Amino acid sequence: MKLAIDAMGGDNAPEAIVKGACLAVQDRSDLQIVLIGDEEKIKPHLSTTDRIEIIHTTEVISSEDEPVRAVRRKKNASMVLMANEVKEGRADACISAGNTGALMSAGLFIVGRIKGIDRPALSPTLPTIDGSGFLLLDVGANVDAKPQHLLQYGIMGSIYAEQVRGISNPKVGLLNVGTENQKGSELVKKAYTLLEEAPINFIGNVEARDLLEGVADVVVTDGFSGNIALKSIEGTALSMFKMLKEVFYSSLKTKIAASVMKSDLKTLKSKLDYSEYGGAGLFGLAAPVIKAHGSSNDTAVFSAIKQACQLVEQNVTTKIEETVKRMKMEEEEEQE
Amino acid sequence: MKLAIDAMGGDNAPEAIVKGACLAVQDRSDLQIVLIGDEEKIKPHLSTTDRIEIIHTTEVISSEDEPVRAVRRKKNASMVLMANEVKEGRADACISAGNTGALMSAGLFIVGRIKGIDRPALSPTLPTIDGSGFLLLDVGANVDAKPQHLLQYGIMGSIYAEQVRGISNPKVGLLNVGTENQKGSELVKKAYTLLEEAPINFIGNVEARDLLEGVADVVVTDGFSGNIALKSIEGTALSMFKMLKEVFYSSLKTKIAASVMKSDLKTLKSKLDYSEYGGAGLFGLAAPVIKAHGSSNDTAVFSAIKQACQLVEQNVTTKIEETVKRMKMEEEEEQE
Repeated sequence: MKLAIDAMGGDNAPEAIVKGACLAVQDRSDLQIVLIGDEEKIKPHLSTTDRIEIIHTTEVISSEDEPVRAVRRKKNASMVLMANEVKEGRADACISAGNTGALMSAGLFIVGRIKGIDRPALSPTLPTIDGSGFLLLDVGANVDAKPQHLLQYGIMGSIYAEQVRGISNPKVGLLNVGTENQKGSELVKKAYTLLEEAPINFIGNVEARDLLEGVADVVVTDGFSGNIALKSIEGTALSMFKMLKEVFYSSLKTKIAASVMKSDLKTLKSKLDYSEYGGAGLFGLAAPVIKAHGSSNDTAVFSAIKQACQLVEQNVTTKIEETVKRMKMEEEEEQE
Repeated sequence: MKLAIDAMGGDNAPEAIVKGACLAVQDRSDLQIVLIGDEEKIKPHLSTTDRIEIIHTTEVISSEDEPVRAVRRKKNASMVLMANEVKEGRADACISAGNTGALMSAGLFIVGRIKGIDRPALSPTLPTIDGSGFLLLDVGANVDAKPQHLLQYGIMGSIYAEQVRGISNPKVGLLNVGTENQKGSELVKKAYTLLEEAPINFIGNVEARDLLEGVADVVVTDGFSGNIALKSIEGTALSMFKMLKEVFYSSLKTKIAASVMKSDLKTLKSKLDYSEYGGAGLFGLAAPVIKAHGSSNDTAVFSAIKQACQLVEQNVTTKIEETVKRMKMEEEEEQE
C-alpha cells in the first residue's frame, strides 16, 4: 500500500508530518509513503528512509490562498502533486493537513468523484462523552445541499462507520430542529423520506443538543448546518476551558485544588479533542483523501495515516460505489 | 402597563409563574398583570392580589400538542386566551413558558405581524464569557428563511439590542462558515449584500466558534442553523458539566478539591445559564410576545416580565415598524 502525503500542510509542517510518516512505516511493514515538499526541509526530520521517498517541490498552497484558484494555478504545489499521485494511480490514498478548501478542490478536480456520488462530504469524527465518537457529515464541502446529497452522505457515513470504525449496523441520524417526524426545513423533510428507504440503519431525526451524548454513530446534515454545529461545539468547549482556567487561577486556594485534579482534567480535555479520532475524510472521491487537523502533531498525523490505510484495506471507495450503483438499479427496476 | 401571562405554561407552572408575577407587581407600581389559567391552582401561590387579576380557564396546551392544530382547536387554552388579551388591546404584551411552537403559532395567527415584517423570529439572548451576552435570531420560528428575512432579523435585533439591552450602535454579525466576504450558501451571500445596505452596524460574517467570545451583539441566521447553533452550545455546555461532575466525584481527593472551588464553579455555571438573560423574544409581532424558558423558576419569570415591560416602554414594536417603513420608502425613491 502506498500513500501520498503533503509534507508542507498544517501548522507544524513539515516536522510533524515527516515524523508521523516515520512512525507509520515503522508500524506497518507493508506501507510505502511518498512525501511531497521541500526536500531540504523534510530531510532533517527523517529518522528512516526505509519505504519513504520524497517528491521535491518548493511551491506551497498557504492557508490564505483562495482554494479553487490556488489549485488551478499552483500546478507544482505540494498538495496538487500529492493529488496527482493518486489520480495517476501511483498512490492509493492521500493526506494533507493544509488549506481545507484547497484540499476539497484538489480532491474534486484532480482525484475526482465516485461515479454516482454528486458531491463529496467533509466528514470528521467528533467526540462523545463515552469516548466512542460520532461521524458528522457534511461540515462544509457543500453548503447548498440537496436532499439526494444528504441521502448519499448517510450511505457513505454508514459504510465508513462499519468498515473503518468497526461499528456493526451503525445508527444514522438526520440533524434536525426536533426529533419528531415532519420537523424542519424542506431540505431535511425530503432527505428524511429518502433516508428511510435507504439500506442503512436510519434512526430518524436527532437534535444538536444530544450529539455529544452519542445519540447516533453517523449524523447527516448539509455543509452549512454541519459547519455551524462543528464550530459551535468546538467554540463552546474552548470557551468553557478558558473559563475553567480562570476559575483555577483565581486564587492560591483554587490553584492548589486544580492541581489535585490536573490529570483528570487533562483526560477530560483529551476526550473532547477530536484530532484524537484521526483526520476528516473527504468521502465520495475516487480514492481516500484525508484532511488532517491543521494543528496536527506527529501522533495525529500517524492516526490519519492509519485511518487512510484502513480506508484502502477495507475498499471503502469500491463499497460506496457498489452500494450507490445497486440502489440506482433497484430504483430503475421499481420504475419499470 | 398591563401584561397577559399564561399561568399554565412551563415545567414549574403555575407556581413559578404566579410567584414571578407577584415579585413583578411588588417591584413596579405601574404594572398590572392578568394571569390566565386554572383559578384554583393559581390562588394558593398568590402572595398579593394587588394589580393581579385572573382569567379562569382549565384548558391547556401541553408540550406534546401539535402547535398549529392546538392553537386552532383549543380556543379556551390559557395560551390562546393570553394572546387574545393582546390582540384585543386589553394587554400591552404577553409571556408564556409553554409549548414554543404553539406560542409562535398563537403569536402569528392571533397577535399578528408588524406591517412590513414577513416572518417573526425567535430571539434568545445567549451567554458570552465576559457576561455581556448576545442576541441570536432566528432560532427556529422560520426554518426556510429568505435573504429578505435575514435582513429584517438584523434590523429587529439591532433595535432590540439598542433599546432594551442598552447597547449603543450594536454590532450585527451574519452567522457563516467563514469570516471572508463571499463565503457560504446562496442564502447568506444574498443576505450579506442586503445587510451591508441596512441602517445598522453590520460587521460582516461571524463564525460559530467565536459566538461565546462575544464577537457580535446581534447574530443573524436562518431558523434552522440558529437552532443547531443554540442546541450545540447548550448541549456541549451540559455534556461538559456532566463530565466535570464525573471528574469531581471520581475520588475523595477530587471531591475535596472540587468543594474548595464550589462557589466559583457555580458562578461559571450561572454565567452559561441563558435563562439569566430573560426569555426569548418573538420579534416581528404586532406586540411584544416573550417565550420564557420552559424550566423557568420565579426569578426567571420575573426577568421575562421586566424584559416585556422594557419592550413596551421603549416602543420597540413601533420603532421596528417605522424603520422598516422608512427603508421601504427609501428603496422606492431609489427605484423612481
